Amino acid sequence: MIDKKNTSKTSISKVRSFRKKTLAIDSYIEGILKNDKATLGKAITLIESSINEHIEKAKTVIEKCLSKENNSIRIGITGVPGVGKSTFIEALGKNLTATGKKVAVLAVDPTSSVSKGSILGDKTRMQELAKDPNAFIRPSPSGETLGGVGRKTRETIILCEAAGYDIILIETVGVGQSETLVHSMVDFFLVLKLAGAGGELQGIKRGIIEMADALVINKADEDNIKQSKLAQIEFQRALHLYPPKINGWTPKVLLTSAIHKMGINEVWKMIKQYLTQTKQNGFFAENRKKQNEYWVLQTIDNQLKQEFYQNKSVKKMIANVLQEVHENKISPFNAAEKLLLLSKKELK
Amino acid sequence: MIDKKNTSKTSISKVRSFRKKTLAIDSYIEGILKNDKATLGKAITLIESSINEHIEKAKTVIEKCLSKENNSIRIGITGVPGVGKSTFIEALGKNLTATGKKVAVLAVDPTSSVSKGSILGDKTRMQELAKDPNAFIRPSPSGETLGGVGRKTRETIILCEAAGYDIILIETVGVGQSETLVHSMVDFFLVLKLAGAGGELQGIKRGIIEMADALVINKADEDNIKQSKLAQIEFQRALHLYPPKINGWTPKVLLTSAIHKMGINEVWKMIKQYLTQTKQNGFFAENRKKQNEYWVLQTIDNQLKQEFYQNKSVKKMIANVLQEVHENKISPFNAAEKLLLLSKKELK
Repeated sequence: MIDKKNTSKTSISKVRSFRKKTLAIDSYIEGILKNDKATLGKAITLIESSINEHIEKAKTVIEKCLSKENNSIRIGITGVPGVGKSTFIEALGKNLTATGKKVAVLAVDPTSSVSKGSILGDKTRMQELAKDPNAFIRPSPSGETLGGVGRKTRETIILCEAAGYDIILIETVGVGQSETLVHSMVDFFLVLKLAGAGGELQGIKRGIIEMADALVINKADEDNIKQSKLAQIEFQRALHLYPPKINGWTPKVLLTSAIHKMGINEVWKMIKQYLTQTKQNGFFAENRKKQNEYWVLQTIDNQLKQEFYQNKSVKKMIANVLQEVHENKISPFNAAEKLLLLSKKELK
Repeated sequence: MIDKKNTSKTSISKVRSFRKKTLAIDSYIEGILKNDKATLGKAITLIESSINEHIEKAKTVIEKCLSKENNSIRIGITGVPGVGKSTFIEALGKNLTATGKKVAVLAVDPTSSVSKGSILGDKTRMQELAKDPNAFIRPSPSGETLGGVGRKTRETIILCEAAGYDIILIETVGVGQSETLVHSMVDFFLVLKLAGAGGELQGIKRGIIEMADALVINKADEDNIKQSKLAQIEFQRALHLYPPKINGWTPKVLLTSAIHKMGINEVWKMIKQYLTQTKQNGFFAENRKKQNEYWVLQTIDNQLKQEFYQNKSVKKMIANVLQEVHENKISPFNAAEKLLLLSKKELK
């Protein structure tokens, strides 16, 4: 185990000097397999790099980590800023490490970037968990596209699982499509909420109820407890109006006060109940299989589109062609064909 | 105007002999512009053809029709079988033609095929409207993909508008993604429902409430009227829980008994109110512009994917590569890259 304090102090300069040197592939693998957090961190930085040589190396590292058997559980946690995500994750994380589990915390934040210093940010937010030898915290990778951020996070999960982390918590802020992205890489999806002033469903984004395996109303303490219980009833009623989920699970609505560590045990109990049920009925394995296929097809789709829209002729002409469509000079379908034809001409 | 009876009798043999001869492009345009239904019908058959020569001809016909000014309104109507869609469309259509409007009825039915004889089917279902000189009824095009069916319907709208139809009603059965498809080509989206035995929201498909500009509870007559009024209240309450629509319109819940022609006037009044409001606030024009862009990008996307998945090397290898993913031998991302590389090799 490495000295925590030391790692924090040196992490920034390590990132800065990273572009100059990487480890040998075997050193990455060896470090990851014995859960050397510094090496794990370096391997994740390799995944996050956009230098071709690093990308190739990262591929091999991921491939070698993939084959390591593990029984990890991936949990997605979302909620708007102010809902208490960090406090909740810290409370849940400490609760789990106390029972001997190893917990990795990752994030998908499409607004993050290295320059904003989110590396220290996350560790400051979860100080207790950051000091815990059985916990590993990694901030959101930065990236130009949400798809890119998603991919890097999905690959980081593979490394963390090879390093022996039992529970992977993936936090997201719910900007744009980031919730759908996280939902497509986790086994259980938890939505944190605050009790509002009635009309609870109004604040819920499209489709979020369909994704949620649990709604957890946080800050259900002191003056807030009565309102939180009312919100719980309203959410429970609303969830009943929805058709049952294909995994056979009825989403639960729980109350927590993460800051007072209240209700955290119940959340974990519920997740365990979910796991038992979905492992028994086969959904757990089936879902992971489907998620893997989704990532294959999604990556292909993204790549095809990226190549198309970065084609020089397409780039040059697309605004004109769309303008012709708006002026009813050309139908949307003929416009599409015109652009497709253009993209092929350049290839030859 | 042509003799209705005659058209019905000969339409099947016309379809059968169609492959042999098509008209000259100018004859199509001329016939469409003077609203000769027989020529309009032939032009739509041209759009539906998969023969390359026809496809090229259809393109030109569509292009020439596009530039014709019109003030059409496109209305999507969905509902499960048994809800009374045909009776409702016939009642609404007759109501509109009675005030001098010209009405075209199209359909998007992913389960249809020419062999099922849906041409006669639609006219049998709406006998009164079929006889109306101011109405034009066309069954769903058949097609291997929903996207193909959608494209043909979208192109048929252009021809009908050039022929001077003021109101285009597009019916769909709500199988798979067909509702989303129709929603992306209409100005107003109406969902037909029946009053059930409580728990009304349970029967509503994902996302349908977000798409609906109106919920119309049909068969609200005789013994059913009390239950229908209760359902109306429940739906209204549910719609209030959703965030307001970007077009500034609050979806309405109305009652009709299409068979007794009750409530039909109110439905049309509501649609007119919607049109006034969204034309004033600019949403109407903005929405059509966005829909056009959507169809350009969607067509490109479909085409790129189709070319990729029909690539011989990809076809040959994809099952193997997915199997490797399921066995954790390769990550989803590397699998995607492997397939992308394969698809390019064949090109050279």
